[in-house]
Amino acid sequence: MIRIGVLGYGNLGRGVECAIKQNDDMELVAVFTRRDPSTVKILTDSAKVCSVNDIEAYKDKIDVLILCGGSATDLPKQTPEYAKIFNVIDSFDTHAKIPEHFANVDKSAKDSGHIALISVGWDPGMFSLNRVYANSILSDGSDYTFWGRGVSQGHSDAIRRIEGVADARQYTCPVESAVEAVRRGEQPELTTRQKHTRECYVVAKEGADLARIEKEIKEMPNYFADYDTTVTFISQEELDKNHKGIPHGGMVIRSGRTGWNLENKHIIEYSLKLDSNPEFTTSVLVAYARAAMRMHSEGMTGCKTVLDVPPAYLSRLSGEELRAHML
Amino acid sequence: MIRIGVLGYGNLGRGVECAIKQNDDMELVAVFTRRDPSTVKILTDSAKVCSVNDIEAYKDKIDVLILCGGSATDLPKQTPEYAKIFNVIDSFDTHAKIPEHFANVDKSAKDSGHIALISVGWDPGMFSLNRVYANSILSDGSDYTFWGRGVSQGHSDAIRRIEGVADARQYTCPVESAVEAVRRGEQPELTTRQKHTRECYVVAKEGADLARIEKEIKEMPNYFADYDTTVTFISQEELDKNHKGIPHGGMVIRSGRTGWNLENKHIIEYSLKLDSNPEFTTSVLVAYARAAMRMHSEGMTGCKTVLDVPPAYLSRLSGEELRAHML
Repeated sequence: MIRIGVLGYGNLGRGVECAIKQNDDMELVAVFTRRDPSTVKILTDSAKVCSVNDIEAYKDKIDVLILCGGSATDLPKQTPEYAKIFNVIDSFDTHAKIPEHFANVDKSAKDSGHIALISVGWDPGMFSLNRVYANSILSDGSDYTFWGRGVSQGHSDAIRRIEGVADARQYTCPVESAVEAVRRGEQPELTTRQKHTRECYVVAKEGADLARIEKEIKEMPNYFADYDTTVTFISQEELDKNHKGIPHGGMVIRSGRTGWNLENKHIIEYSLKLDSNPEFTTSVLVAYARAAMRMHSEGMTGCKTVLDVPPAYLSRLSGEELRAHML
Repeated sequence: MIRIGVLGYGNLGRGVECAIKQNDDMELVAVFTRRDPSTVKILTDSAKVCSVNDIEAYKDKIDVLILCGGSATDLPKQTPEYAKIFNVIDSFDTHAKIPEHFANVDKSAKDSGHIALISVGWDPGMFSLNRVYANSILSDGSDYTFWGRGVSQGHSDAIRRIEGVADARQYTCPVESAVEAVRRGEQPELTTRQKHTRECYVVAKEGADLARIEKEIKEMPNYFADYDTTVTFISQEELDKNHKGIPHGGMVIRSGRTGWNLENKHIIEYSLKLDSNPEFTTSVLVAYARAAMRMHSEGMTGCKTVLDVPPAYLSRLSGEELRAHML
């Protein structure tokens, strides 16, 4: 049994809990929270809810601690800190800051003799893997990553901060004609606007100036100005009814050529269609918890990413079983 | 520079040669052939063509030997034999015999202190990887592998052996409606007939009984009897003009569920669309040659498969570069 601890009980923490239920070689030992533990209700009867202040007492009771905090402020502190005590995994997803995060976590994990896997999920994570595999195979080619159709929490939050907005949900959508051109092997050069559109469903406060809200959204730099954005005002009831889920997905496509004169085209595509972004992310985290456990038991230490993990380490099956049934 | 040797110069050998041209950290040193070397013309000016009888002289001049023989009779002998002298890679693709092949190669490579990577390509190979990743992430789900639309050499050969047939080309095609049902997350149970159809383009010899040929094809056990098969008689000219390529491809799809009550659906799909089956296979082989070299330099020995290789080992980029740009 691999004994798992979870730090943080939001969408990700709950997702880890659900994923552990599906893997009978794993056991959820405890959920650690910054809140008053008596206010946190979890689903697993056999697991404890503890204050994060008591986490050190679990040093020998947990094989892998899965960190379910946010990338902006939680993980940059938590992952190096808890790698001193546990084998840890996080889903740190601020791409530009991965090298810095890696260096901090690596030092801490090496000093304490633990394994730390960072940036585990689907992007970074499975999408990264597929970029590396496809680039290594097709040396001559172009990469394309499309996201969606799916909910962007960051963009939804940005809309909610506009004056007069009560609630909002933003979907990132790949431009179908661009995806098709890529799949045909045309290797188009695509601008930001040509790759994705943004659909916004907005609940306005009573009496708010809808035209101004729409203008502010569409002109918001970084978030919306570079995209074709549609804004649809709806009621809170409609938002709650039709836009409650957290679906996401996307695809990584490499379009390349081989042959003495590059005469043959090839398309490698990896795509995800996810009803629940956090539950898929945590399913990836839990599979990599198994790998972390195995790497630790082999004496490896330090910070690693999905690129460093042999695929077989994610599976419950033995090498023999994998070769006989999955290869 | 990684120094590569190639054994066998058919479609695969030539594909390896083309792939090496695209990777400037590699160099083709020599092609070894069972034919008279003077009759074998290769594309690379700087590489030698040698008799396989002289291969031992290259013991210290080659880092990885890529075996380009067939799975039926060549590789079961060659891979264990040459793993005694070189680090080797093959594309052994008789799925049912992989465990036996692995055991033979493992012993030989361990005894001699080499690395041997077997069953490298796309199926087995990249498709296997994707089966393992997707199964490890989505514990509750169903797997689907579709092949095509692509040329099956084995089925084309089977048709050519029928009396009265001058030439033939067989395409394996996925049934589009089955693929769509899988992509919608319906997790259908599919029979052999419901997954693929077989399209046969046949050149008959003059005066041959077309009705008998068509009947023999459609009723051939294992190859065609379990499939909806179409037979189209065409001229040799038309076959040469429209069916000369060796395209292939397919997709590995896992359809699974997550959530406390399995309430959320997820689809993971990996798909390939290949103009040239052998050139894609050899592009995979060459990327794994880089990995083999690295594993050997780290002191690893014995037989491995794609499931044992960390993705980063396929890339020319350093860990630092991969984390900064690809993760």
